[in-house]
Amino acid sequence: MEVGFVGLGRMGSNMVRRLLAGGHRVVVYDVRKEAMEEVAREGAIPSQGWEDVTQKLCPRRVVWVMVPAGDPTESALRELSQYLEERDIVIDGGNSYFEDTQRRAQELAARGIVLLDVGTSGGIWGREAGYCLMAGGPKEAFDYVEPLLQTLAPGLPAAPRTPGRTGAPASEELGYLWCGPSGTGHFVKMVHNGIEYGLMQAYAEGFDLLSQGHRALGDLCPQLPLARIAELWRRGSVIRSWLLDLVAMALHEDALLSRYTGIVEDSGEGRWTLSVALRLAVPMEAISSSLFRRFRSRQDHPFSEKMLSAMRQKFGGHIERPTGG
Amino acid sequence: MEVGFVGLGRMGSNMVRRLLAGGHRVVVYDVRKEAMEEVAREGAIPSQGWEDVTQKLCPRRVVWVMVPAGDPTESALRELSQYLEERDIVIDGGNSYFEDTQRRAQELAARGIVLLDVGTSGGIWGREAGYCLMAGGPKEAFDYVEPLLQTLAPGLPAAPRTPGRTGAPASEELGYLWCGPSGTGHFVKMVHNGIEYGLMQAYAEGFDLLSQGHRALGDLCPQLPLARIAELWRRGSVIRSWLLDLVAMALHEDALLSRYTGIVEDSGEGRWTLSVALRLAVPMEAISSSLFRRFRSRQDHPFSEKMLSAMRQKFGGHIERPTGG
Amino acid sequence: MEVGFVGLGRMGSNMVRRLLAGGHRVVVYDVRKEAMEEVAREGAIPSQGWEDVTQKLCPRRVVWVMVPAGDPTESALRELSQYLEERDIVIDGGNSYFEDTQRRAQELAARGIVLLDVGTSGGIWGREAGYCLMAGGPKEAFDYVEPLLQTLAPGLPAAPRTPGRTGAPASEELGYLWCGPSGTGHFVKMVHNGIEYGLMQAYAEGFDLLSQGHRALGDLCPQLPLARIAELWRRGSVIRSWLLDLVAMALHEDALLSRYTGIVEDSGEGRWTLSVALRLAVPMEAISSSLFRRFRSRQDHPFSEKMLSAMRQKFGGHIERPTGG
Amino acid sequence: MEVGFVGLGRMGSNMVRRLLAGGHRVVVYDVRKEAMEEVAREGAIPSQGWEDVTQKLCPRRVVWVMVPAGDPTESALRELSQYLEERDIVIDGGNSYFEDTQRRAQELAARGIVLLDVGTSGGIWGREAGYCLMAGGPKEAFDYVEPLLQTLAPGLPAAPRTPGRTGAPASEELGYLWCGPSGTGHFVKMVHNGIEYGLMQAYAEGFDLLSQGHRALGDLCPQLPLARIAELWRRGSVIRSWLLDLVAMALHEDALLSRYTGIVEDSGEGRWTLSVALRLAVPMEAISSSLFRRFRSRQDHPFSEKMLSAMRQKFGGHIERPTGG
Repeated sequence: MEVGFVGLGRMGSNMVRRLLAGGHRVVVYDVRKEAMEEVAREGAIPSQGWEDVTQKLCPRRVVWVMVPAGDPTESALRELSQYLEERDIVIDGGNSYFEDTQRRAQELAARGIVLLDVGTSGGIWGREAGYCLMAGGPKEAFDYVEPLLQTLAPGLPAAPRTPGRTGAPASEELGYLWCGPSGTGHFVKMVHNGIEYGLMQAYAEGFDLLSQGHRALGDLCPQLPLARIAELWRRGSVIRSWLLDLVAMALHEDALLSRYTGIVEDSGEGRWTLSVALRLAVPMEAISSSLFRRFRSRQDHPFSEKMLSAMRQKFGGHIERPTGG
Repeated sequence: MEVGFVGLGRMGSNMVRRLLAGGHRVVVYDVRKEAMEEVAREGAIPSQGWEDVTQKLCPRRVVWVMVPAGDPTESALRELSQYLEERDIVIDGGNSYFEDTQRRAQELAARGIVLLDVGTSGGIWGREAGYCLMAGGPKEAFDYVEPLLQTLAPGLPAAPRTPGRTGAPASEELGYLWCGPSGTGHFVKMVHNGIEYGLMQAYAEGFDLLSQGHRALGDLCPQLPLARIAELWRRGSVIRSWLLDLVAMALHEDALLSRYTGIVEDSGEGRWTLSVALRLAVPMEAISSSLFRRFRSRQDHPFSEKMLSAMRQKFGGHIERPTGG
Repeated sequence: MEVGFVGLGRMGSNMVRRLLAGGHRVVVYDVRKEAMEEVAREGAIPSQGWEDVTQKLCPRRVVWVMVPAGDPTESALRELSQYLEERDIVIDGGNSYFEDTQRRAQELAARGIVLLDVGTSGGIWGREAGYCLMAGGPKEAFDYVEPLLQTLAPGLPAAPRTPGRTGAPASEELGYLWCGPSGTGHFVKMVHNGIEYGLMQAYAEGFDLLSQGHRALGDLCPQLPLARIAELWRRGSVIRSWLLDLVAMALHEDALLSRYTGIVEDSGEGRWTLSVALRLAVPMEAISSSLFRRFRSRQDHPFSEKMLSAMRQKFGGHIERPTGG
Repeated sequence: MEVGFVGLGRMGSNMVRRLLAGGHRVVVYDVRKEAMEEVAREGAIPSQGWEDVTQKLCPRRVVWVMVPAGDPTESALRELSQYLEERDIVIDGGNSYFEDTQRRAQELAARGIVLLDVGTSGGIWGREAGYCLMAGGPKEAFDYVEPLLQTLAPGLPAAPRTPGRTGAPASEELGYLWCGPSGTGHFVKMVHNGIEYGLMQAYAEGFDLLSQGHRALGDLCPQLPLARIAELWRRGSVIRSWLLDLVAMALHEDALLSRYTGIVEDSGEGRWTLSVALRLAVPMEAISSSLFRRFRSRQDHPFSEKMLSAMRQKFGGHIERPTGG
């Protein structure tokens, strides 16, 4: 089928390529001309702007928006909606906060335009491996765009079938799913990212201990072979996972990870996950720890730690060591 | 080659089967006769006891011990060592604490017997999928028993090759690895299990939030389809893993998990991981949270929570609600 | 001076009594007639309703509102503001969220009415001991109501003077402080309550361990004398505090705390504290743990724990114990 | 009465002074001559060594040992015990691990010597305010040394009496307590310190948020007056405590705590508290967080954080920011 595609960043460009490879007609728009030219060379149809991208599509139009959450998404939807007609479908494939999505869906619905939220996971690997797609919004619109989702998703062979699942595969077995009404796609993606934070922290803590393990194992023990252990665990262990595959890659390149400093960003979904958990009174000790460690990693010494030192000095006369270690 | 195998529990029996299927001669011993009979029907050679199992093997003997950590392992090694000769090899495949292993290795070495520690992961799936084997002890003995490890391990095809790894596969790519001197195998397995706790907790927290998600998504939103979401995430998502495969299975059987009460045991490795982290001053917020939640799950209300209520009553006159909710 | 006082709950009534004892004229209003009658017997002037309470005061009126945060505060301010005149002052002494306060202050300011936010701590003990008052809003209005704050606050003798503080005591040494513009009073109170959660959890965890201590100390050791230990720590220890005074009281009454079940509410400020911490990227591991434990205490077994059991069953065939212990 | 006192560090010297002021005869020993000379000027009797300190005392001798836990305590007890006679009493006033104490008590008991463990809290303030004393060991020996404890302890007026406690004050109301058999004194002190970690962390996190509060409060809000807020909370608030008194002092001296870097030591008791909690399966989320933050504060970026960055780079192509902020 045909689709407009707005936002040709690292992820968007690869999605366009996968759509083209799947035989779809893709009209693209991005302020950066060179980004359009690059995918145009692979078959995408470049456009001149918001109006042009819509005019190059036949009704019932479908436009996939793949821009950063917040203001960029807000303004992209505003621009686009000027040129869309009733029943046209906009897909927000970014990491919008689900309540923003719910509001935007209502605003667009008032003008007859349908917003689908399709949380998209897969990172820079998705072009080859396919994307995991978590959709929310009117079911009818989801059905309409299903051919696109099918192309983008990894497909059945990407994982062994779950025992008990037989016959024609359900859509979730192909890698895309209608999760419910507006906002549910982004909600499910948000929780996905919260889990991701927790998983990453668990590996990080474990390898931190391994990297110090020789100190517990005794004088005869050399530093443990981290890269080989990561590789080992990929086969047969309980903790094998795609993240571990990446860990094995990174450690194989450089077992000391010396090109990384350890300043760790967070892109917002972790905070949202926790905010919702606070609202619903769901305890989230591990995921919150993961987020707090990232906050901590971005500072030198927070005020809290100076205060700990100050208290120790005041009650016990303890003098701070000049350096850590 | 030939091997003695002591301990035919859930895991041991399956390992024997995999060894038999690999063409090895396996002499087994377990106090439970019926457990021996079962694997005898598949080709294992039953024995009458500690002495007999050793006598049915030719020197240089190899005996794999697969019994619970602590006293059972301690006494199995003591019994066995009476009947072993110099250069014979005992493999402790259980979850012993690495410092116990180091002590035992020294004690056995004094009598010329070699102890290898081989942390074994894979659970009840290992028979088919193979076991992930983390070995410690004299490298020469590891080399000697390598044919057994090769049979038990999953082998190269169990995971895609890590980019940059070419040529003849390293042993870790087959699923077994010599990690270092005595104790390192069990140390690496211990950390593996610590990571496992953290991963499990991350998924658990995320699905807990999903199970409540409709309350945040609004009146129109039904309960989210947890089983389908778990299945979905198996393909293309950042959080795909073997544990997620199991989650998808469990939720597909019963999306409410109503056969489980939520009383969660811990088998010791998590506590050891943290003990070592305390000793080495390695921060482990997520893994510790995971363990504490298990502790908490096994009690009704700990004293700590009564104390919180008591303080609230004392400073604010707050009366406890009769029931939670 | 004179003051209107709306909201005669547990805390409000005691504050009125302290104001009366300080020689102020207090006009009170509460929907519950009997609450008004009670303080009227001690000198307060009862009123008939929102209009009446304002009419019984001379301009420049001051009305202290002490009702639950959220809707009750919102509607109390709306009602009152109908009958107030320019320059009149409303004090919100409750636990409103600071952003609500900022919005309300703007709305009232548009009509010339001044809102002061005065976070009030002290619980049911404040009548005797005085209240700790954290104020925000126009400094000029704070100065105007200072006689009320001075009466309500504990005064200089409530704590030994901090070394280096000499001469006429600053207002914070008397127990009240202008913290800054609108919202800062409630913000500071919010953080106060966040800290309170953390402190309570630290004591709770420690006493939990003490209550189990005999298990670590050996067969000859009886249960440790918790009530006596709490009392002991009140004198000379580093952890002496007012909360510990309350713990000692509660344990002296009943060392097993058997009248408490351990279902622990949270009144919102802890969640707000964490929400702001998330926004500002401030790590808050201990305070978040405290809150999550309260969430946990209000449920039987959360879904997360069933999921942990399910995973354990799936990978290891582990069967749940029928009961905890 | 008379007492030997070994170890004239910051804490020991002050304890000697308090004992002298209480009219006791104190024979002191420390390798540092100048430390002995200093307290000798205030009435203590210096000695030449282990033997001399015991010879300057009449049987039934009492010697208080106040040296660092671990090797120094071990060797001090070994040295002393050579010159002690049956029924003599050694008091370990340091922070020994309770299991070491239990072992040492047994060893000394075999030779008729009594070991009392007396956990001592109070820091550098104890000389004036008195020490909180948590004792374990034979009750008869505790009774024998009670005059010393009474002098060292703060006494009844140090805190208001707990409601319901009337008549002659119990020893815990004076600030010292026999907690139970050998090891209980050190056990109770260990838990005391664990709680201390948690309390400190709660204040630290709260003030960290306050220090950033203006960013949440809006453009018009200046930095919050931390020193004044700490002072304010000392009177009437729920979170008033001795630690808060110290915080107010430190912030009054320098509201930015700029003389502290935030590298925070831990002296061992926190780790022991957690080790025991792990053994007894007591959940300790807040106290463990406190300890982990200290570990974290002593490193630049732990390996765990580099690994988080590496994973982010691998799945999403995320490049680390060159600097934090």
